[in-house]
This record gives sequence, C-alpha cells and structure tokens, in this order.
Amino acid sequence: MAYTAAPFANHPSPILQSRESWRQDFPAAAGALRIRRELGGGGGGGRVRCGLIDPDGGKLVELVAPAGPERETRRRAASPAGGLPRIKLSRIDLEWVHVLSEGWASPLRGFMTQEEFLQTLHFNCLRMPDGSVVNMSVPIVLAIDDAQRRAIEGRGKVALVDANNKPVALLKDIEIYKHSKEERIARTWGTTASGLPYVEEAITNSGNWLVGGELEVIEPIKFNDGLDQYRLSPAELREEFARRKADAVFAFQLRNPVHNGHALLMNDTRMRLLEMGYKNPILLLHPLGGFTKADDVPLSWRMKQYEKVLEDGVLDLETTVVAIFPSPMLYAGPTEVQWHAKSRINAGANFYIVGRDPAGMSHPLEKRDLYDPDHGKRVLGIAPGLWKLNILPFKVAAYDKIQGKMAFFDPCRPEDFLFISGTKMRSLAKNRENPPDGFMCPGGWKVLVEYYDSLVTQEEAKLLQPVPA
Amino acid sequence: MAYTAAPFANHPSPILQSRESWRQDFPAAAGALRIRRELGGGGGGGRVRCGLIDPDGGKLVELVAPAGPERETRRRAASPAGGLPRIKLSRIDLEWVHVLSEGWASPLRGFMTQEEFLQTLHFNCLRMPDGSVVNMSVPIVLAIDDAQRRAIEGRGKVALVDANNKPVALLKDIEIYKHSKEERIARTWGTTASGLPYVEEAITNSGNWLVGGELEVIEPIKFNDGLDQYRLSPAELREEFARRKADAVFAFQLRNPVHNGHALLMNDTRMRLLEMGYKNPILLLHPLGGFTKADDVPLSWRMKQYEKVLEDGVLDLETTVVAIFPSPMLYAGPTEVQWHAKSRINAGANFYIVGRDPAGMSHPLEKRDLYDPDHGKRVLGIAPGLWKLNILPFKVAAYDKIQGKMAFFDPCRPEDFLFISGTKMRSLAKNRENPPDGFMCPGGWKVLVEYYDSLVTQEEAKLLQPVPA
Repeated sequence: MAYTAAPFANHPSPILQSRESWRQDFPAAAGALRIRRELGGGGGGGRVRCGLIDPDGGKLVELVAPAGPERETRRRAASPAGGLPRIKLSRIDLEWVHVLSEGWASPLRGFMTQEEFLQTLHFNCLRMPDGSVVNMSVPIVLAIDDAQRRAIEGRGKVALVDANNKPVALLKDIEIYKHSKEERIARTWGTTASGLPYVEEAITNSGNWLVGGELEVIEPIKFNDGLDQYRLSPAELREEFARRKADAVFAFQLRNPVHNGHALLMNDTRMRLLEMGYKNPILLLHPLGGFTKADDVPLSWRMKQYEKVLEDGVLDLETTVVAIFPSPMLYAGPTEVQWHAKSRINAGANFYIVGRDPAGMSHPLEKRDLYDPDHGKRVLGIAPGLWKLNILPFKVAAYDKIQGKMAFFDPCRPEDFLFISGTKMRSLAKNRENPPDGFMCPGGWKVLVEYYDSLVTQEEAKLLQPVPA
Repeated sequence: MAYTAAPFANHPSPILQSRESWRQDFPAAAGALRIRRELGGGGGGGRVRCGLIDPDGGKLVELVAPAGPERETRRRAASPAGGLPRIKLSRIDLEWVHVLSEGWASPLRGFMTQEEFLQTLHFNCLRMPDGSVVNMSVPIVLAIDDAQRRAIEGRGKVALVDANNKPVALLKDIEIYKHSKEERIARTWGTTASGLPYVEEAITNSGNWLVGGELEVIEPIKFNDGLDQYRLSPAELREEFARRKADAVFAFQLRNPVHNGHALLMNDTRMRLLEMGYKNPILLLHPLGGFTKADDVPLSWRMKQYEKVLEDGVLDLETTVVAIFPSPMLYAGPTEVQWHAKSRINAGANFYIVGRDPAGMSHPLEKRDLYDPDHGKRVLGIAPGLWKLNILPFKVAAYDKIQGKMAFFDPCRPEDFLFISGTKMRSLAKNRENPPDGFMCPGGWKVLVEYYDSLVTQEEAKLLQPVPA
C-alpha cells in the first residue's frame, strides 16, 4: 500500500489544548522533546532532531539469510538430507518465528532459553550484558513433547519445518528445559482460569518441555494469503519512515475494525505532535495479524474494512503507514500491552497510543473484565525498558448525538453521548442494522455486514450438510 | 544474645577449593572483590575495603517516632479522642507494620500504593525517582472490606490498631484501590491452587480493597513473647556489624532447625570469604520469625534449638550474629527468595546464601514441588536490584556414613551418603528415634523431640475433652 493521494484536510483538532496542558498530560513526551531539542543543536534553536528511536539492544535483529550461498547452506542443512532432527511448527509457532526473524523482539535472537524465560516471567524484562534493561513481557517459547525431546537431546541443532514439512529455519545451541505450564500461565495472565484463548490454542495441549536457541531462518516467512504485501518488517518500516522524513512516529495497535472515533483520535494525536514542535509525525496504523480468538473479526476482513476507511479519506494517506503486526494475540492485558509497545519501538515508533483495557477481555469464568481497565496504561507508564517510549493515553471518543459524529466525550454533557461497544457494533452488523450516521464510513460498514453475512452463510451450509450417521 | 565466648576452631574447610575454582563458582563475588580492591586504594594494595553495603534507596527507612513529643502526638491522634477512623490489624498485618517500620523494605515507607503494587506484581522491582531500580518482589499491602472502605473514604489519614485496639500507627496520604486477589495470587505464587498457606491465612477471606499510604509508627513493635530481644532491626544489626568491624556479612535465612550440614556450610562460607581476602566475615544467622505454616517448627522451639546448637560450639560465636527476621513467610519460592535477599541488604548483608528450592513447598494439589528447585537460585542471580548482592549457591551437604558426620556430597561415591530430608527428620523426632551420630548435636535434637512430645500431649489433651453435645 503506497498512500500518496488525498492530503489531509487541515482543520483544527476538536479538542485543542494549549501546549502547557499537553505537557501536563504527557510529561514524558514533553521531556523527550526537551532532550531532543537539547541534542539537536545547530540552526534554528528550537528545531526538533530528526532520526528514529533506537531498537532495543541498539541493533535491529534480523535472522533471515540473504538470498545466496548462506541461504542454500541453511536449506540443505534443514532438508531431510541434512540428517538433523526435525520439529514441526504449529501455526502460532510459525508466527513467532516470523516475529523473531524480523527483529520485532530485538535483542532476542531465537526462542527463549530458560534464563530469558525466567526473566520474562518474573521481571517482564531482560538484562543486557552492559547492565541495561530491555522490556520483554511475553514468553516466546517453543514447546516440544517427550518424544521430540528424546529425538533432539544431545544434538546441538534442529530443523524447524512448517505444516507441510517445508524447512523454515534451524535452531542452534539448543537448551531443553521444563515447560512449567501452570506457572507460565499464572505469571503471564494473572489467572489460571480455563477459557483463555491463547492458552487453549497453544499451551494446554502442548509438550512438557521448551527448547530455546538461536534461529537461523532460511528465507522470509510468507503466508501466501494475499496479505503478505502488508507484512512490513521493522527494517522496511524504518526505511519507509525515513523515506517520509518522519521526525516522530506514533503507533496505533488494533485488532478491531476502525471507526471514526479511532480516526478522530489518530488525527488529534498528530495535531498535538505538531503543536509540540514535530514537523512530520507519521502514524503507524498497525493491526495485529497473528492468532486471534474466534469471535474477533478475521484479519482479511479487517484489512478490507481498513481499505474502505482509507479510501473514504478519514485518515491522511500521506502521513499514515498501514502494515500488519505479525504477532499472535495473547489477550494478556497489562503484560501483553508491553509487548505491543516494545515491538513498535523496534519498528521505529517513539510514541505509543494506549486505550482502555488494552489486550484485555472478559474473565473467561466470571462476569467481569479480566483486568482492571486502567492497569494496562499504568503498567506501560512504569514498565522497565519502556521509559524511552512516550505513552499517549487514549482519549475516550463516543457518538455525539448533537454534532451527529464521533467526538471526544465531554463529561459536562454526558447525556449527549452514545457509547457503541464492540459487542453493540457486532450485533448491529449481524442484524444488518445501520449505526448512527458518522460512526463509520458507509463503505467500511458494508464490509462488516458482509463479513457477518458470510458467517451466516457458512452456518447455513453446515446445517444443510447431511448429518453423519 | 551477646556471643563473645568460644573462638572457632580454625581447622581447614572439608572441601578446600583453590581461589580460581571459587571464582568460577561465584563470578559475582570475585567481581565484587575486584571492584572493592580497586576502590579500596590506599596502603597495602590488595586491602579489601571496609564498610557495609548501602541500603536500598541509599538511606535506611525508619518509621518509628523517637520517644518524646512526636511519639505522643501520634499516640493522641491514633487514640479514640483523635477522631480518626480505625483499622484493626491482623497478626500478619502487624508483622508487616513491624517489617516496614524498621526499614527491611527500604525504600518503602508504608503499605503499597497501587503504583507500587503494580510494579511489584509485574516487575518485582520499584523504580526510584533517579531512574535506579530496587528489588521488591512481594506485595506488602493492607486489605480492607467494604464497610472499612466506606468509613475511611475521603479521609486522608487512618489509625491502625492491634487486636486489643491499642494504637500502633497512623497511615497517611491514603489511597484505596481494588484488591485483585486472583491476579495478586497468580502473579506472586505462579499458581492459584487452593491450599497455599499465606493465601488461606491472609488473602482469601480478606477485604476487596487495599489501602496504601505512609506509616507513622508510634513506638517500636513488640510481641512480648520472650523473643523480642532477638528481633534486631536493620539499624541495630548494622551497628553490631560495625562494632565487630565486619568487612563482609553473609546472611543465612532459615525457617527450620539447624543441623550440622547447615553449620558445615556456614563455616565453609566463612573460610571461602577469608580466602577471597576478607579479614572479618560475619555470619547473620537469621531465622524467619513471622507467620509460618502449621507443620513448620514454631519460632519459640526453633530459637531453643539454635541456643543448644550454639552452646555446642558448632558455630563460632564471635563471628556469628543470631537475630529474628520479622517477616511472615509466603512460601512463594523464586518470588519470595528475592524478598529474603533484598531485606538482608537493608540489614547490611552483602553475601546471601541460597539453597535448593528456597521458600518452596510441595504443590498443594499435585504430587510435585510447587517450584522448580533450581529456579530460586537462578532468579536471584538475575533479579533487578539484586545485582549488587553476591549470591552464594548452597552446596549440598548430606550424612557421610564413612566419616560419620555431615559433609558436602561427593558425587564420586554417592552410596556413602544419606540424605535426611525435613520430613524424615520430623518423623524421626516424632517417633523419639535418634538420627545418625553427627547429624545434629544431642542438645539440639532433644529440643526437637520435646517439641513433638508437646504436640502429642496437646493432642491427647484434646482427645480427653468431653465431646460437645
């Protein structure tokens, strides 16, 4: 997607704050600006320094062999002729190989060793040899069962293959250690209740051992689902930001369709960054593309919806980059939001927008949110290794019945606002009802209705199938 | 206890390692020595620098008012005439007030606010205003119920009283926040299985709110159980170490009776510190004195047993300080061992001895250890804020049938060694059987047998009581 058209209508922000009030809201941002100005030096005095935030560990990790002899050597070693034991990757394992291969988890160079796993579980961060700390809040591990363990024990290297037995990578300097599932789940999710989507998909029935080691990936991971073009690596994103001469990059993580409230927020953030003195803030609109739970809107439909929304012109194409974040979704609330933020540092973002209950969900067994909706934002603000990132709290947008559009909630006139939850939005789309005018552009809404229609059709098709005897 | 008698027999360590092998075992210790030597400067070149390790946050927190007008002002404010809402402390709450009041948890100045609680749960450490980090792995929080919450809401200050309604402290600048029990338990213990002793005692039935704030303690906390003399504060311990001109302090945390294997280890550690160049390493033998689970030997009996062991001369009284560590026991394994180590830094210890499965227990529901026995030591070695502490891994001691005494296990002749577990020791003492000669001094063993006899007598007394109709 190269967005070059439709310059953004430069109207003032609906809630225009003075620079001082902005600084009160975002002291870290104001601090960063001050430091950047001090470092900037040179002409103009107040000129904001250009250049992207450093990746964690100082250097972006890239684990894919360049095309050429090195790639062929790896391919041969991972082929049956190479004689290495093989581990078949699940879909989520492959998503993690993708994530690791492109350096989203820099400075991690492979599936976690026990030392990395323990640091992640207990401290949500890794200590670097120089004594500095990088954030790393979610375990990125590869589970194997007893038989696989026996097959690879004593070997220094194994081959990782996909569902079709195609070699994907080598894992070297391997270390095998116990997969303490209960402890992993409790410390990552803060609960062990049954019904956690990622746990049920990737942990409960996985092997009792974990194997860590360094990855040597053969070639770029592709999913061949028509969306690979949107799967930009951190290096590609950094290149794109540099090409656009970004002096600030603000990332917006999402796993839901975009409505006009989101657009309002993103446009408002850009205005505020301009007010701070940045000349060219670029938005990274960054939908998550890996595993999601069954009732989330699938990636392919979300991408269709984003396309319509962007065509509609509610976001400025010149200052927006849309790409897919390849991570699976854990629904681990305050623990996971750190991962969402940290990985975007590696892609060059120095501002991160965080909303209410990020990466949260309902408690699988009790009638309440699994996490305090406020904790994600609070934890982000104090997380080790994220102190260099500017956290932008999400302002609440709702449908303003007076203005007939999405607007920031005004606590002085609460009766004028209509909150349309995800559940409400889904139920409207399922029933082919329309949301109020101005909630979402009509083209985007049509995609959602089509998606739910397709579900009904699938259900009907199932019902029409003969019942097995 | 002032130990001035019986100079320690200066025989060589049973396993005398060369300095090089010691450095391989304890790189942190060797590193510390190098740095200390470099800093030491002055005459002699290789002279080890004297002076105790700094407390966390740079200054030892002390929250007890000195005798005088300030104490009386606090006492009046906390009395019924002061008109403040009152919160009655449980035994464990009072133990935490004791811990906080003396600065074991420095730089913490009271029960945790939400920000401190979240940092503890997610990161096991607190960030200081200067950007440095101190370890803080276990939540030190005060739970209140809905009625108490209503009573104190909107008030800036409350009075804390003991079980007899005697005022203990004021809590000021209070903040009330949700007690997310499930999340607290999962993130602290790595399980939510029922049957965790501290959870059942202090969390399950506690209130749904937590109240944080700064403590103003009225006078030193006393338990009037005949053991207060052993409850030395970090300040008192530091004074004692300085008086003895300690140039290294090595702490040994325990909640069990001492046997000769422990003594062997402690004596061996001292020898190794001398070999490193320290001139006067002092042992802090530091039994935990707060809440313990029902089947642990109670503090009063343990103290009796230690007295016998020390009379017996297996530890050098001149280089040993025995005191009670006032914290309750959480049985939270790798999370808790950090607290055990961190609090000893505040008391002046720069070496910490860690054994197999520290602060661990059996899984309450499954037939296995709750924690990987190796994780405690590993986590200590990488925990934020503990990098300045030298961690000394516990060498395994067992009964050597050939030598007829406790010795370090020799893997070349495993058949010669007898492992006497805590369970085995308890069952021997219960059955009035004797352990092998040299396992424990006879006086110490006698105390254990007496303790289990007293239990039987209590049981019999219960059986003799008339059954209620």
